[in-house]
Amino acid sequence: MTLAQGSGARLPQGSGPQGSAAGGPRLGSTGDVAPDVFVEYGKRFVEWIGEFLANPERYPVLARVSPGEVAASLPASPPVQGESLDTILRDFESKILPGITHWNHPGFFAYFAISASAPGILGELLAAALNVNAMLWRTSPAATELELRALDWLRQLLGLGDGWHGHINDTASISTMLALAAAREAAGLDVRERGMAGRTDLPVLRVYCSEHAHSSVDKGAITLGIGHENVVHIPADAEFRMRPDILRERIVEDRARGMLPLAVVATVGTTSTTSIDPVREIAAVVADSTRAVAATASAARPWLHIDGAYGGTAAVVPEMRGVLDGVDLADSFVVNPHKWLFTPIDCSALYVKRPEILKRAFSLVPEYLTTRETAPVENLMDYGVQLGRRFRALKLWMVIRAFGAEGLAERIRAHCALARTFASWVSAERDWEVVAPVPFSTVCFRYAPEGKSEAEREAINSRILDAVNASGTVFLSHTKLNGRYVLRLAIGNIRTEERHVAEAWRLLRDAAGVAR
Amino acid sequence: MTLAQGSGARLPQGSGPQGSAAGGPRLGSTGDVAPDVFVEYGKRFVEWIGEFLANPERYPVLARVSPGEVAASLPASPPVQGESLDTILRDFESKILPGITHWNHPGFFAYFAISASAPGILGELLAAALNVNAMLWRTSPAATELELRALDWLRQLLGLGDGWHGHINDTASISTMLALAAAREAAGLDVRERGMAGRTDLPVLRVYCSEHAHSSVDKGAITLGIGHENVVHIPADAEFRMRPDILRERIVEDRARGMLPLAVVATVGTTSTTSIDPVREIAAVVADSTRAVAATASAARPWLHIDGAYGGTAAVVPEMRGVLDGVDLADSFVVNPHKWLFTPIDCSALYVKRPEILKRAFSLVPEYLTTRETAPVENLMDYGVQLGRRFRALKLWMVIRAFGAEGLAERIRAHCALARTFASWVSAERDWEVVAPVPFSTVCFRYAPEGKSEAEREAINSRILDAVNASGTVFLSHTKLNGRYVLRLAIGNIRTEERHVAEAWRLLRDAAGVAR
Repeated sequence: MTLAQGSGARLPQGSGPQGSAAGGPRLGSTGDVAPDVFVEYGKRFVEWIGEFLANPERYPVLARVSPGEVAASLPASPPVQGESLDTILRDFESKILPGITHWNHPGFFAYFAISASAPGILGELLAAALNVNAMLWRTSPAATELELRALDWLRQLLGLGDGWHGHINDTASISTMLALAAAREAAGLDVRERGMAGRTDLPVLRVYCSEHAHSSVDKGAITLGIGHENVVHIPADAEFRMRPDILRERIVEDRARGMLPLAVVATVGTTSTTSIDPVREIAAVVADSTRAVAATASAARPWLHIDGAYGGTAAVVPEMRGVLDGVDLADSFVVNPHKWLFTPIDCSALYVKRPEILKRAFSLVPEYLTTRETAPVENLMDYGVQLGRRFRALKLWMVIRAFGAEGLAERIRAHCALARTFASWVSAERDWEVVAPVPFSTVCFRYAPEGKSEAEREAINSRILDAVNASGTVFLSHTKLNGRYVLRLAIGNIRTEERHVAEAWRLLRDAAGVAR
Repeated sequence: MTLAQGSGARLPQGSGPQGSAAGGPRLGSTGDVAPDVFVEYGKRFVEWIGEFLANPERYPVLARVSPGEVAASLPASPPVQGESLDTILRDFESKILPGITHWNHPGFFAYFAISASAPGILGELLAAALNVNAMLWRTSPAATELELRALDWLRQLLGLGDGWHGHINDTASISTMLALAAAREAAGLDVRERGMAGRTDLPVLRVYCSEHAHSSVDKGAITLGIGHENVVHIPADAEFRMRPDILRERIVEDRARGMLPLAVVATVGTTSTTSIDPVREIAAVVADSTRAVAATASAARPWLHIDGAYGGTAAVVPEMRGVLDGVDLADSFVVNPHKWLFTPIDCSALYVKRPEILKRAFSLVPEYLTTRETAPVENLMDYGVQLGRRFRALKLWMVIRAFGAEGLAERIRAHCALARTFASWVSAERDWEVVAPVPFSTVCFRYAPEGKSEAEREAINSRILDAVNASGTVFLSHTKLNGRYVLRLAIGNIRTEERHVAEAWRLLRDAAGVAR
């Protein structure tokens, strides 16, 4: 079925019930499109999405358009008069859809695979219609209270202890930046008020993370004025986990040089290999690091932030709860329901132990935003940069309720099992190798025929990747580990089944036969 | 009609076609809710939203719940097993909806009124189903190319010149922060790499804006480590516009003290009164300020950013295009389609003249995000903090096409006319006064009976506001101007008609009769 009413070329403008004589949607001269027209088209959208969800494999997962092709198909200027929804939808199908890379496709194995589940899509639909801004409690009490409640549910699902304050941000990039800003505030340097430039009383600030940490740690430090060179990338062990002993050394060295260790970011599920930093040991290093120094305000222990944007979700599986071991010792923790918890993008959950510090870093209430309510009422705009806050809790709440704790666990468990199955196929095959442990649902591997140089292997694997991605049935991405080019298969879409993973493996082996 | 299938109490769990024996939605043990169940519920949602849009006045605009009331109605823990969509929706209607403050209600006159128009809601629905991340061109070419095209359309609608690069952020808070970060990068101080703390070679950085500028300027400066005390709030004239002569003085003074004027933020449509800073004169001050100083890299002229988050939209009305006079002289400009262009929240358009500087401030490409495409292909993750980027261009494109340039102008024009009508009613009434010019669709006014002190007037107007907002038919907010408490009526919802404004005026006068 198509979104537009009829076949493209033959449909006269404005002929349907939605059309006005001028070809625009039926609407008053100043109002919105008429509600009955909305209902008519909304149902058509819903049917189209239903078919899309039932048969996502109709579409190539990786878009096949050339650069500039979509742009060239679009008029250079906006229309002077309103156009009918039929016309718009015809263009959506003919011009936009071919240029979509289908993240909601069961063959999407690149980066981290994500899902818009049916309950999540319905949640977004309702939230778009209500269009509330959850900046203040008053501006939608239910949005604020549901957000706090849904995040407490998620905390329980993950097996974390009491004493966490959770709120939703758009992305983990922002959540991690806020955590680093809280670390800066906690250091008691009066950066909020006085800034950092032109001051002679500030030490250099240092942030520590694994060499495998996500680039958002670097971006956060850059944004906050900490500086990219002050992000210390700690070497990892053979299994790609941050080495606490080296972390300890670097903190001591930096202190000795007069620098201030501001924050340590440990990752549960790094981006390349999904390795799990030893959080408990790192927390011990962080706790110890206060002893070595003078007891000035700015010499307090570093802030410990945990990036579990992808991997943290696995803790909803009771037998995998150990992946978050030690996280309760941290100051902040981020996990993204929009990554691996079937919630449409965007939805990132940031938990902090001391919300008052985050609030001290960001709260700023001009007169026009003052309200009468006092504690325990919370105005969630106080916890971050953004004043505009979508009602993201609604979709998360609907997802958690529709699947339940056991249903969520079952899906995550299945993804991890699929990844192990794929890894076993790779391991069993001559000239192929799994190059990192598989603690979650992502496998790093490569084709490594004997007698080839590393440069040749990179070229071969790159060709394999291109060939596989050109299939239209699966989409994988790559990374580099210790300088070696490797392929990644990341399972996370809710509709992925074993047959999709098997198809990826078949394509990979076929491509290797040609590429070598 | 209700979202749930039947009347609440009598509906047995799992009795409908959507129910499984266990009461959960019908789904595989690991997959999503079945597509036909999605379609069934999706249509019900669409019908419900259709009725909501047709009769938004069924609901009180300002939620009437007490603090904690919604939270108390929600279970403390998440469900173990999945629940049926019927159950979830029954709870949505009985527990969540009463706690919603209805921003999509034609009686919403608080802060800045916003709209989720029908085409915008449909756009969000499609975007949620596709669930793409527009971080890289490759990860959805159409999302990137449509974003660039839609923002160029918007630029043309606003009558801005060529040479602007536009991309979408979530909020103006982020857009303005990015602009200030670009200013920091443009200053050539190597802040990206080296940070600002512990350096002796940096001057204090200063940001200038009107005393009526939005708090996001302050928050941006706080976040970037510039410091709140380094945001210089320039006094305004009698019409609440930044005074360029004082700006010039402050810049010269700060330079003389060895400080670096980093950026000037001018506002087109300030938050309290929607006053318009004299952008052209401010641009001249900014351009002049290079002459007074030594020609070192860091002494280049300040970056000029224009905050037109609300007011900028008015330039879609040909005869109002003058509100953006001088903006083409700026370095960056933000306007929010989610404010006054009928696009669901969130959607903020940031335009920059020198995108390479913004990119230099933020681009960071780890191996796992490298792709083969080269310029002119753009990866929009390079222009900001966030890696996750929703497909926001889709709804904006649908809104622009459905209404067309003339349709958008007609709606904005009508809102401005309504505001002038309301202002005329206030001005004509004894003891009432309009306290600021009305250049857009927002009126600042108050009840100012003779013989009352300012403290008494504040108390009276505050009581009037409470009484009016308790009506459930309209919702207004307040601000303070020169220390005086004033009321604000902001028109911006697409369904607002004269009768809603008249109802507000009737309620205000009635309340004044009681409150005095």
